[in-house]
Amino acid sequence: MLIVGENISVTSKIVGEAIRNRDARPIIDMARAQKEAGANYVDINIGPATKNGEELMQWIVQTIQNEVDIPLALDTKNTSAIEAGLKVHKGTAMINSVTGDKDKLDILMPMAKKYNAKIVGIALSEKGVPPDVDSRIEVIMNIVNAALEYNVPLSDLYLDPIVLPVAVMQQQVYNCIEGLKAFKQLKDLMGLPDEPKTIVGLSNVSQSSPLALKSLINRTYLIILLSHGLDSAICDPLDKELMNAVKTFDILTNRILYAHSYLD
Amino acid sequence: MLIVGENISVTSKIVGEAIRNRDARPIIDMARAQKEAGANYVDINIGPATKNGEELMQWIVQTIQNEVDIPLALDTKNTSAIEAGLKVHKGTAMINSVTGDKDKLDILMPMAKKYNAKIVGIALSEKGVPPDVDSRIEVIMNIVNAALEYNVPLSDLYLDPIVLPVAVMQQQVYNCIEGLKAFKQLKDLMGLPDEPKTIVGLSNVSQSSPLALKSLINRTYLIILLSHGLDSAICDPLDKELMNAVKTFDILTNRILYAHSYLD
Repeated sequence: MLIVGENISVTSKIVGEAIRNRDARPIIDMARAQKEAGANYVDINIGPATKNGEELMQWIVQTIQNEVDIPLALDTKNTSAIEAGLKVHKGTAMINSVTGDKDKLDILMPMAKKYNAKIVGIALSEKGVPPDVDSRIEVIMNIVNAALEYNVPLSDLYLDPIVLPVAVMQQQVYNCIEGLKAFKQLKDLMGLPDEPKTIVGLSNVSQSSPLALKSLINRTYLIILLSHGLDSAICDPLDKELMNAVKTFDILTNRILYAHSYLD
Repeated sequence: MLIVGENISVTSKIVGEAIRNRDARPIIDMARAQKEAGANYVDINIGPATKNGEELMQWIVQTIQNEVDIPLALDTKNTSAIEAGLKVHKGTAMINSVTGDKDKLDILMPMAKKYNAKIVGIALSEKGVPPDVDSRIEVIMNIVNAALEYNVPLSDLYLDPIVLPVAVMQQQVYNCIEGLKAFKQLKDLMGLPDEPKTIVGLSNVSQSSPLALKSLINRTYLIILLSHGLDSAICDPLDKELMNAVKTFDILTNRILYAHSYLD
């Protein structure tokens, strides 16, 4: 399972301030802490970044990668900022994310191809969150077709069935599970040469829930999704109980060898 | 999900002593505590019970049911003791369990039919634990066929793919998941009129693991199995974290309505 650490986000107060002040230290520290906790990627969410987005993304990518050896997921709606980040990124970057809208696909898919980046395709369209499972599949099929059109290897494509808060949209949380199961059938359904991967933005599920419940909800949902074949999650690697649950999942499904000390 | 409380077992020191001394109080207290914690059934494991098995089973069934309104799973290899228990049991009892051996099936299936009891069919034969998934299916198909032969409703049949300790037989823990998935396909595979249910003896998975890991291993395994459609588990309802995980599973799969207070 590929773990994308979610903690470097402009929505966090510390990160927001560090970004405004171009203060490298907190950002480097957060990247390193997430890597040490088991993250394989670190997400860099700089928000809409309409002003100075390109310069900002390059600064943050280089700030982190000069100190910490980890690839990054570039997360902003500003596609020029994404490309600026890709230009200076070392290793295989991830683009997070492209929706099913044609104008976005026509910009970001060629970019993923050009820079050999992984790309997250999310079951969202200009109409917003698809109301049911079938409309999720419809949007995702457009994304898969765009990847095929632009020769992006399907093994670099991560399909996101959209996690929504259980406190607000409980039915959609169930639909996301069903969406994931359907996405795992796409190779057969569409006769694809390769299997696209799957990913979720996990912590959304516990948004608006009381703090005391968040970790329990997150880790239970992750185990359900992993049971249905989820390949990757954008989540908090510093949540020890979450990471212990993932390790235990790997033990119980025979992916890593059991030892009494497997949590250490 | 049907929860069968596992705590009244002759293998526990307190229960063993209470049984030897025909001391009702600890047994009643344990039954009540499990019911209050959410158990739907309470398992009564009196061991081989080769001596006085019939009298013992009747004593324990009546001792509990005179004080606590809960149905029981009668758990012993002594089939006469099972029948003695069924004779005095109030409500729908559960027989735990019948293996794939023909002589056992020919005794216990007619007994389940006669007393309208639920019955657990376990993927074990005289040859022991089946080494792989296919041999689990083979044994279980014999059990399903015996249920059909003796007109036991398939909705009263609980198929157990056998949980083994991950610390000792890690591959078998994975095989059990695959076995469960296969059992869920039996209705289609065998053209059955109704779907048999599924059950596991959960705590076995963490046997021989350090105490500090047991609850984590148990609850993670349970969420995996529930994700694949498990209907019931024999487990410890007094394990608060296990029960919280089950409630969270029910929330995330839209079986019970979310409220911020759903754990209370």
